Amino acid sequence: MSATSLEPQAAVAGTTAHTLSDEELRNIHAYWRACNYLAAGMIYLRDNPLLREPLHKDQIKSRLLGHWGASPALSFTYIHLNRLIKKYDLDAIFLAGPGHGAPGVLGPVYLEGTYSEVFPNKSEDVAGMKTFFKEFSFPGGIGSHCTAELPGSIHEGGELGYSVSHAFGAAFDNPDLIVAVVVGDGESETGALATSWHSNKYLNPVRDGAVLPILNLNGYKINNPTLLSRISHEELESLFKGYGWTPHFVEGSDPEEMHQKMAATMERCVLDIRRIQGEARASGNPQRARWPMIVLRSPKGWTGPKEVDGHHVEGFWRAHQVPLAGVRENPAHLQLLEEWLRSYKPEELFDVSGRLVPELKELAPTGTRRMSANPHANGGLIRRSLRLPDFRDYAIEVKQSGRVAAENTRPLAWFLRDIVRENPHSFRVFSPDENTSNKLDAIYEASKKLWLADYLPVDADGGELAPDGRVLEMLSEHTLEGWLEGYLLTGRHGFFSTYEAFVHVIDSMFNMHAKWLASSLEQKWRAPISSLNLLITSTVWRQDHNGFTHQDPGFLDLVVNKSPEVCRIYMPPDANSLLSVANHCLNSTGYINVIVSDKQKHLQYMTMEEAIVHCTKGLSIWKQASNDEGVEPDVVMACAGDIPTKESLAAVVLLRKHFPNLKIRFINVVDLYRLVPCTEHPHGLSDNDFDSLFTKDKPIIFNFHGYPWLIHRLTYRRCNHKNLHVRGYKEKGNINTPLDLAIKNQIDRFSLAMDVIDRVPSLQATGAHAKEELRNMQIECIDYAYQNGIDKPEEDQWMWPA
Amino acid sequence: MSATSLEPQAAVAGTTAHTLSDEELRNIHAYWRACNYLAAGMIYLRDNPLLREPLHKDQIKSRLLGHWGASPALSFTYIHLNRLIKKYDLDAIFLAGPGHGAPGVLGPVYLEGTYSEVFPNKSEDVAGMKTFFKEFSFPGGIGSHCTAELPGSIHEGGELGYSVSHAFGAAFDNPDLIVAVVVGDGESETGALATSWHSNKYLNPVRDGAVLPILNLNGYKINNPTLLSRISHEELESLFKGYGWTPHFVEGSDPEEMHQKMAATMERCVLDIRRIQGEARASGNPQRARWPMIVLRSPKGWTGPKEVDGHHVEGFWRAHQVPLAGVRENPAHLQLLEEWLRSYKPEELFDVSGRLVPELKELAPTGTRRMSANPHANGGLIRRSLRLPDFRDYAIEVKQSGRVAAENTRPLAWFLRDIVRENPHSFRVFSPDENTSNKLDAIYEASKKLWLADYLPVDADGGELAPDGRVLEMLSEHTLEGWLEGYLLTGRHGFFSTYEAFVHVIDSMFNMHAKWLASSLEQKWRAPISSLNLLITSTVWRQDHNGFTHQDPGFLDLVVNKSPEVCRIYMPPDANSLLSVANHCLNSTGYINVIVSDKQKHLQYMTMEEAIVHCTKGLSIWKQASNDEGVEPDVVMACAGDIPTKESLAAVVLLRKHFPNLKIRFINVVDLYRLVPCTEHPHGLSDNDFDSLFTKDKPIIFNFHGYPWLIHRLTYRRCNHKNLHVRGYKEKGNINTPLDLAIKNQIDRFSLAMDVIDRVPSLQATGAHAKEELRNMQIECIDYAYQNGIDKPEEDQWMWPA
Repeated sequence: MSATSLEPQAAVAGTTAHTLSDEELRNIHAYWRACNYLAAGMIYLRDNPLLREPLHKDQIKSRLLGHWGASPALSFTYIHLNRLIKKYDLDAIFLAGPGHGAPGVLGPVYLEGTYSEVFPNKSEDVAGMKTFFKEFSFPGGIGSHCTAELPGSIHEGGELGYSVSHAFGAAFDNPDLIVAVVVGDGESETGALATSWHSNKYLNPVRDGAVLPILNLNGYKINNPTLLSRISHEELESLFKGYGWTPHFVEGSDPEEMHQKMAATMERCVLDIRRIQGEARASGNPQRARWPMIVLRSPKGWTGPKEVDGHHVEGFWRAHQVPLAGVRENPAHLQLLEEWLRSYKPEELFDVSGRLVPELKELAPTGTRRMSANPHANGGLIRRSLRLPDFRDYAIEVKQSGRVAAENTRPLAWFLRDIVRENPHSFRVFSPDENTSNKLDAIYEASKKLWLADYLPVDADGGELAPDGRVLEMLSEHTLEGWLEGYLLTGRHGFFSTYEAFVHVIDSMFNMHAKWLASSLEQKWRAPISSLNLLITSTVWRQDHNGFTHQDPGFLDLVVNKSPEVCRIYMPPDANSLLSVANHCLNSTGYINVIVSDKQKHLQYMTMEEAIVHCTKGLSIWKQASNDEGVEPDVVMACAGDIPTKESLAAVVLLRKHFPNLKIRFINVVDLYRLVPCTEHPHGLSDNDFDSLFTKDKPIIFNFHGYPWLIHRLTYRRCNHKNLHVRGYKEKGNINTPLDLAIKNQIDRFSLAMDVIDRVPSLQATGAHAKEELRNMQIECIDYAYQNGIDKPEEDQWMWPA
Repeated sequence: MSATSLEPQAAVAGTTAHTLSDEELRNIHAYWRACNYLAAGMIYLRDNPLLREPLHKDQIKSRLLGHWGASPALSFTYIHLNRLIKKYDLDAIFLAGPGHGAPGVLGPVYLEGTYSEVFPNKSEDVAGMKTFFKEFSFPGGIGSHCTAELPGSIHEGGELGYSVSHAFGAAFDNPDLIVAVVVGDGESETGALATSWHSNKYLNPVRDGAVLPILNLNGYKINNPTLLSRISHEELESLFKGYGWTPHFVEGSDPEEMHQKMAATMERCVLDIRRIQGEARASGNPQRARWPMIVLRSPKGWTGPKEVDGHHVEGFWRAHQVPLAGVRENPAHLQLLEEWLRSYKPEELFDVSGRLVPELKELAPTGTRRMSANPHANGGLIRRSLRLPDFRDYAIEVKQSGRVAAENTRPLAWFLRDIVRENPHSFRVFSPDENTSNKLDAIYEASKKLWLADYLPVDADGGELAPDGRVLEMLSEHTLEGWLEGYLLTGRHGFFSTYEAFVHVIDSMFNMHAKWLASSLEQKWRAPISSLNLLITSTVWRQDHNGFTHQDPGFLDLVVNKSPEVCRIYMPPDANSLLSVANHCLNSTGYINVIVSDKQKHLQYMTMEEAIVHCTKGLSIWKQASNDEGVEPDVVMACAGDIPTKESLAAVVLLRKHFPNLKIRFINVVDLYRLVPCTEHPHGLSDNDFDSLFTKDKPIIFNFHGYPWLIHRLTYRRCNHKNLHVRGYKEKGNINTPLDLAIKNQIDRFSLAMDVIDRVPSLQATGAHAKEELRNMQIECIDYAYQNGIDKPEEDQWMWPA
């Protein structure tokens, strides 16, 4: 390391030597040795946990699994935070971006006693330590990341990229909380992480807590150097200043020196945080701060074997996972392992019972000040129910079904606006620059868009910005989703709306959160957190000018892959049903609720009373559109989604005109999981109920919002599946009017009516003329659209029959 | 703008006044006026294209669609590039990150004649212009982004975030090419874009071309300011220096001043690029350069209406889409529109026929120097077939099927290594730090990992880095995918391997590229490009220590949503079949080929000759595991994927032992689309063929690599679907041995054998004892794994029967 590279440290460096007394230094280093001993132990040992006898190969695990490389710096950071928590009585939690380095977090969590409290079989003694070691990354044991099984974790770090956005979500509206987040330098190459550094433009120093990022440059990913570790010090510093942070550098490898530097630097950061907050709170004037962050440049696999078989290990990529392989087979490696483990001198660290010695034990905070026992990291414990106004108060009047059009999301916006008002510290709204586009702008009447970057005079003309806004808009679905997850995991509530096609940007984040929720169910000590409520809008059927790239209803195909215990999908067809569904979702815990509803004007079908009944059932026969009272229908017209519902209804009108005697049953589906057998999803219908609704042998023409195959996938076990004919989006589109697009994908009224003629035996012979007429009407509609750029105004004649 | 904020421009500013002569300035501004006129015209006019009569409301489109906001700065940049292309005979292409601003690109493309050459009905005259206007963002017309319909485009910019990575992909191995890429400041907030700035660490100035990013800070997204436009000049400059660029600032709104600044700055950037390249090439020593980039701070909707109805429009978010709404209904708006359009003085710009006047016409380059006609942007034109060694030479010897285990990806690595050798300028390998992990490291024998950031001495000990490496590894799937797409779109070849669970990070990029390919098929003037070959490895079934977060085979569920014309899925079960499949994919054009194959040791089943036959068929009966010769089988055991194949085979062994008379047909599926009816996918089997393989009425036990429902989705129309029973991943997993995980999800040998007993009528009565035995064996396996951390070594006894 050049002298230059340490220059920015000069001010701190001056004080370095004196930050820790000799005794403090000795103790903190001993504590770290204990952490590192545990980290290595859990990777290797299935017995002889404290090396009280010579290490024998049979005491080594058969498969060596775990990531040593990131672990030492994680515990190093953890215990330096502990020092400050004790010194300043800080309220802090800890996120490990490189969650693969869980051994570096499990160690301190075990040492401060929380682990044994939660898992009594991993007690603080020799037997408990043995179990603790053996069950790490072991079949039937616990995961090797900072999973939901780890007390104090709200961030698994299995998939990389979301640590900083999770940290900010946790800090929002927690003014006294410090969220320390270690960012791996591998992770820092991901897109999600790279843009999440800008989260500092959304942190209000008056009402929010602080995020203290520690970028750990250990230099390597699995097999490669990392970018940020291989640019000049000047570039690195410039980058973080450009991101709006005040970077502090802690660089080196000598433990004593590094303890002093880290102690001084971290203390300075904490004091800076408190100063920034104090000034902002005293003035009552929130301004964007250049918050401190730490660049911790330390060797990968720090304190591990330096060289193995003539190759560099410590400080190189070879330290990533298991630095010494083949230990059971290779006596030399076994000896190296024993030497390495004994280098931490476990006999000095643990007493005869196997418990950390008292003088070290007291270095950790106690009770809920322990980061592993901080209730913010088990957010359900401190969660309070959302105060919800009566959603029925926002109903729109529907005198006659299918006669009046309205933007479905507007009334929801009024509801959300008042939820914002009634929950001024625990509810936030998230969207990638789309709340206004999604017709949710009424929310701004309650609270503006959070903005702490620069202002211009023109903002007064409809900017809707405020430094204390509760609406978060950034053009990064990743960051928004990360913030929201962090906010929910720490016990609060939120609502996220996003364009349907681009929710795929966060597919993998959805996957990870769903897995986290499913895993949490198995940890009974974790209290349920609020559901993640995701409104998917600006949907495929109304991309009148955005065209093909904006047409993708496939997110649902991913959702149904995840555990039925944690996923819900709703497709309310109109404004009142959307309100009813949203109310239900906002009240719930433990789920990811996906609500699909377009933002444009759509016909309104149900009064609020009707909507509540319908949504509670999840699907029901719409009597107004059915004429099969008392008899088996000839055909079941089913639909899910706003535009498909409208087209199915219009098809019914057409069919009635041509075939007045045709018995039609009309079923609208709001809760998609009702279609699944009750043995597969808690919301599933029994086969009996399904059969009584969809019949056992009549054709079903199902008009679906998404890709048609999803309905087959959900219903393939149903008795009448063989007669199920599904229409949906088939990747046909460019610039289209709504009806033109519907026709291209055959979800339009005409195609549906023709489908019925093709499938109802009694019509197959007699329907030829009607089919021709329908086809002509269809062509006429396309011609009109291509001529005029809009659909025929007469389109509205195809409304719900009076 | 403060004086300070212009300071870094000082050096350039001194030369500014003289860069363009008065005549040049007058002409370039007139050309820009023509571009802006066209941009506004295409949004509004359906008739009277040159305003040769007073504007009448009936001449306005019924729906006003398009994005004005980004358009003027796009054409501004485009025509300033044109100047330098002519002056220096540059080979350049143009990518518009904010592709929504297509009017700003369509304008100059039309003016330089390419548009009319490709679409003769949009000729360079009044009638052609009228059609050009009318069909923009109009049903039956062309899209409103820089779609595949736009000559010169390789980047649609519908979904935001990939412009810079696409640009780098285009520049790789094109030493004379300059790829200009306008980056929107909205886009710059996305994760993908934020990390793609680091692509400069992968650009070799000796062998690669240059990327010239122009970050257009117009200040606003749809309804919000943008982050980068609202931080201090110092932060912004610091950020880009930190990213490793040399930023140049062009800031202002006065057209004359801005033309001079842009001309001077862009020329300086081009000369800097040439200097950097010249020095590197003269020395033969490639080093990372601090390449120039431009920050163009200009008003959103520049030159459009300043105020409408008392509200700010130009330079504010209201200019984003259509600055003047309701023009047909509102005479005042109609008048404003006419004034705005006439402010560009079209009568000075176009001659009586409607063609751009000659003195402006000559400002554009000609022939293939036009960015819209540059063959690099229609890469299929210059694409040459990949030189492929004979893949059979890499076969592994399989003397007896199912007796020997090997890592399936190793032989592929040898094949890829030699492809790298034989195609030193047109083939690259991409992976997020995982090639070694994926057992593809043999590639490094031919070429190392590209690395132009700093080196350390330790790199000599297995770093495998080189400044001219052809293997690209960065921990950003987004960046890799963007590079690869850009590389393919400009006529080259590539191979991308990635972990199965985290391919979801680029779900949306896959969607976009699939849509681009499908759209390109409709543009016959676009020549086919190489397929995008994606190896999905480190699969769900072998996440022995990474656990639950790393288990997600759901990418395929998205793939099948996209057009069957462009998607292919292969699941080769062993090394030789993987080679055969890879060879086929690398030879193909126009597809996204998804290959699923795990990297761990797996049993080997087929000689190369057998593998070729099997892969060519796509699925076939494995005679060695079948005993139904000449008769209808009692049960069909089908499988797809390496681990499922092994377990199905082991189940056959178990079944034969218990029920020697049971007639089993064993089918392995490599080409997943064979399962689909031939009416739905070009690879689909006819119903006859399907029935003759899978029978019409016998139970099928299908063991599938992914989520089981996908097989139902693909086969629901098949006659025997009712007897199809599919096993696959069901989100059950944590830390598991391979067999333990298989058992948890019931894809294991025991569960499958029990499934057969449950479903074959003749076994239902007699099979109880066998079932009990199977269940005991299953429990024994789990116990062993939980005790020892590994599967029973005797597991191998469950091999393919001799």
